[in-house]
Amino acid sequence: MTITITAFAASPDRGRGLARDFRVRWALEEAGLPYEVQLLSFEALKQPDYLAQQPFGQIPAYREDGLILFESGAIVLHIAERHPGLLPADPAARARAISWLFAALNTVEPPIVERSMALMLEGDRPWAAERMAMLDANVAKCLVQLARHLGDAEWLDGGFSAADLMMVTVLCRLGASELLAAYPALTAYVARGEARPAYQRAFAAQLAVFEASQKAG
Amino acid sequence: MTITITAFAASPDRGRGLARDFRVRWALEEAGLPYEVQLLSFEALKQPDYLAQQPFGQIPAYREDGLILFESGAIVLHIAERHPGLLPADPAARARAISWLFAALNTVEPPIVERSMALMLEGDRPWAAERMAMLDANVAKCLVQLARHLGDAEWLDGGFSAADLMMVTVLCRLGASELLAAYPALTAYVARGEARPAYQRAFAAQLAVFEASQKAG
Repeated sequence: MTITITAFAASPDRGRGLARDFRVRWALEEAGLPYEVQLLSFEALKQPDYLAQQPFGQIPAYREDGLILFESGAIVLHIAERHPGLLPADPAARARAISWLFAALNTVEPPIVERSMALMLEGDRPWAAERMAMLDANVAKCLVQLARHLGDAEWLDGGFSAADLMMVTVLCRLGASELLAAYPALTAYVARGEARPAYQRAFAAQLAVFEASQKAG
Repeated sequence: MTITITAFAASPDRGRGLARDFRVRWALEEAGLPYEVQLLSFEALKQPDYLAQQPFGQIPAYREDGLILFESGAIVLHIAERHPGLLPADPAARARAISWLFAALNTVEPPIVERSMALMLEGDRPWAAERMAMLDANVAKCLVQLARHLGDAEWLDGGFSAADLMMVTVLCRLGASELLAAYPALTAYVARGEARPAYQRAFAAQLAVFEASQKAG
């Protein structure tokens, strides 16, 4: 089985592991699966041959022999269901981990992405300060519940799973913001994720791509 | 097996099927599974006993004998994986349908929810018109790709699946906006979803709850 994923040839996150191929790289490293990477320019993402693989022109797409998948959540779940190390074996625990995977993507990530986009695209608008206070409050509402749930546990529900992988990558989008720093349980949780050898191998791989793009450019 | 889901006692959507219990009701109807509903006040959602089931204080939570799940995406997937009618049997087609389920929730829904929230919470702010143009453009970017992919097909990928169920409920959040009306392929797609008997049973059930709350209040 040959696995190929797509990624930005020159990621706008400058190699900080925030592009969504990183989640898939991390999952593949946890599962011990080798993979190849097809690097794409922004222009290539809009071409019909790529849209046939990824209908929204995003990265990553995932190819495994004849199968083509998209959406980082679906790809990580696909890997986690077929290889040990990313989901518990017990069916109930497995279903709960999948609840947390969806929570990372559909409850915690949207307000964090909305805030990042506002910082990037609306920072110079007259309304920026007033809106940012609202957006910070939306993020904090999620973080306070997440920190309460986590308490002093190591991971979201029992052992490390694809849900933690996803939640850590989502929280990393807050970067060095003071929002995350207000919750020591969450900064420790993110640090535990980042300390995993699979995380580090995945991080180094995506950083190497960005560094190569800078030399080439 | 007794299935119980939670829902708003008095839904802020006024029975229009936009609250996230509706997706789960529809999936249960497609699978032919009977279910009970525990109605909750906004106050009850914040209580520790409910947060132990649903860590973010949202609806729906899902209980099935000893198992408690949350996140409408995870619950619909749980039902779809265990009962016929919501996912294709072929493993590759099944994985592709799950990609589309995630796309509905993680690519298409966030800009639609962001736009709805802005209409509701920021409509009277001085920046409303300028921001709404940006938010409309973000939604349209998704819709144009979705309409291009759909073409004149009935459903997203082969037969009706949980992915269509989710995508239709996400598009319904656009309501009567002109954004959706600009894509006849998408309005026809939504209409096909709404015409399904399971959709109609689920819609009637959530509307009955809202109407009862109005008489009681």
